[in-house]
Amino acid sequence: MELSSYIVGFVDGEGTFSVSFSYRSKLNTNIEVKPSFSISQHKRNLAILLKIKDYFKVGSIRYSRRDRNYKYETRSCKDIVKTIIPFFKKNRLLTSKKKDFELFFEICELMYKNYHLNREHLAKIIDKAYQMNESGKRKYTKKQLLRFMAR
Amino acid sequence: MELSSYIVGFVDGEGTFSVSFSYRSKLNTNIEVKPSFSISQHKRNLAILLKIKDYFKVGSIRYSRRDRNYKYETRSCKDIVKTIIPFFKKNRLLTSKKKDFELFFEICELMYKNYHLNREHLAKIIDKAYQMNESGKRKYTKKQLLRFMAR
Repeated sequence: MELSSYIVGFVDGEGTFSVSFSYRSKLNTNIEVKPSFSISQHKRNLAILLKIKDYFKVGSIRYSRRDRNYKYETRSCKDIVKTIIPFFKKNRLLTSKKKDFELFFEICELMYKNYHLNREHLAKIIDKAYQMNESGKRKYTKKQLLRFMAR
Repeated sequence: MELSSYIVGFVDGEGTFSVSFSYRSKLNTNIEVKPSFSISQHKRNLAILLKIKDYFKVGSIRYSRRDRNYKYETRSCKDIVKTIIPFFKKNRLLTSKKKDFELFFEICELMYKNYHLNREHLAKIIDKAYQMNESGKRKYTKKQLLRFMAR
């Protein structure tokens, strides 16, 4: 079996590409941008998360009390841009997650160039992020985030 | 990308191997045994189900109103024994689903030899099936099924 292809299939089912936002009055834009590539699994499947972490050689695994699952997660913008994105550019996702990945990758590339520190570009990043993960829940509406920026 | 490895990864995340039972007074044992290999997806991912059906060349896709998803499913014992089982014997699952698959494969091989028509073997099949899919819901308890058999 080819592990890279297996990982694409597993991520197409179980993976999540997301970009979340927090209010941070100390930041110039008032908004912190947090990208994350993650896979959650019940503890009986911890072994596959370790295998995937081992494959990527970035990210970490932690226990999430909230959903009682283990989560492999890469949040470092650099690790995402240097490792995660090139992998999924080479090994194409086949489900609707591909669209999420493409938005994720555009956002992370902008962040890697520090464009999220600029209000105008941040607005574009927010716009892209809110097109991701149709079914996901958001702490803030897009309107609220834009209002934070204007403070 | 290697499609077979992708499918193993996708099934490790999204696939289900199950064996369900129905009460059928017309059968000698009073119990019908129904194996199923399936993958459910939102309609936005219908394309991947078609790709998988195309790969296996068995099974069918239908819309399930109950969970508003599309489901690729193979229920024919022959198709399972001749196509699905050899695939997953060659391309090993890496999560806890592997255990489900192994029980599934033992049950389907017994069924293919018509052992499920014999009460004694059927009891063994029920026993194996109830070790599968820890979190799944069952219409009947094991005790109820054994009672049906004794009628």
